[in-house]
Amino acid sequence: MPVQRADARRNYARILAVAEEEVAAHGADASLEQIARTAGVGSATVRRHFPSRGALLQAVFHERIEHLCARARDLAGAADSRAALLEWLAALTAYAASARGMAAVLTQEPAGDPDEGHVDACAARLAEAVDPLLRRAAQDGAVTPDVTVADLVTLVTGIALATEHHPDPAGEADRLLALTVAGISPQR
Amino acid sequence: MPVQRADARRNYARILAVAEEEVAAHGADASLEQIARTAGVGSATVRRHFPSRGALLQAVFHERIEHLCARARDLAGAADSRAALLEWLAALTAYAASARGMAAVLTQEPAGDPDEGHVDACAARLAEAVDPLLRRAAQDGAVTPDVTVADLVTLVTGIALATEHHPDPAGEADRLLALTVAGISPQR
Repeated sequence: MPVQRADARRNYARILAVAEEEVAAHGADASLEQIARTAGVGSATVRRHFPSRGALLQAVFHERIEHLCARARDLAGAADSRAALLEWLAALTAYAASARGMAAVLTQEPAGDPDEGHVDACAARLAEAVDPLLRRAAQDGAVTPDVTVADLVTLVTGIALATEHHPDPAGEADRLLALTVAGISPQR
Repeated sequence: MPVQRADARRNYARILAVAEEEVAAHGADASLEQIARTAGVGSATVRRHFPSRGALLQAVFHERIEHLCARARDLAGAADSRAALLEWLAALTAYAASARGMAAVLTQEPAGDPDEGHVDACAARLAEAVDPLLRRAAQDGAVTPDVTVADLVTLVTGIALATEHHPDPAGEADRLLALTVAGISPQR
């Protein structure tokens, strides 16, 4: 029935809008019960639209993830492959450091977690988009051998998580990314 | 009264032993209420011994932090300043990756948090012990300029946090530390 479907769409949009606010305020630990209460729906309705916390977080960060994928595709043709990769890494770092809860979406969940499928889908989409950037930089000898997209995402996620309580998370994350790119002690 | 003090000491030891198990199982989010229940004491007793979560975590990780400080002092006289710093970083990484909740102790808490004093004390003790190691390596030109002890601890903490759900956290953390030392893309 069209009326019900319109209702369901409105509910989805309202829950997602509330979820975005709650996740911005409390990060990945945002309370699903609080989201249901604020959205004026039952917990069962929230669960129907978002069967897991991971599904909800993925919806909240969907636009940012898609934007990062698009950015990677745009940069894939840049003349300077190293600069392109570093520009993308800086964008990922800025997002991960400024959006509370996003780092949790980028971190692998424990095996067997019901969220896993969603998190993997998100990580896989990013990996697919960035892989050509990394491969071109590697072919140009601009990247330490054997670095994978997963390594890059994990390092950036870690920087975002460890700077979450810093007075200037984005600035500090950017500085630590520069150190990670340059290396603490790059050679002997 | 000696009897009461002996009781208090026993309570402290029992709470700390239970806390170590709970933190190992649940990380920094271990439930203080559960710790009180398992230890067979009231929440008020837990609070009297450990006025904040940070104080409890610091007690749980006291021995490991002291061990890392001692290790830094031992390594300060090593002939190869770079190898000494890297050996200490590997030890820090192994501890942070294997001991759930330790990364939280090493991460800065939000300003104004009642835990802050304790966390700072712990971070300050580490920083004091490691500073000579880092300075020697820097004097020998083995470290990227302007790297601070806080940078090193934050990078390692991030690696530990981001690899927490990996099937082999210690191995993965070690690999990412090597990448951070070498740099993702160290030079042009």
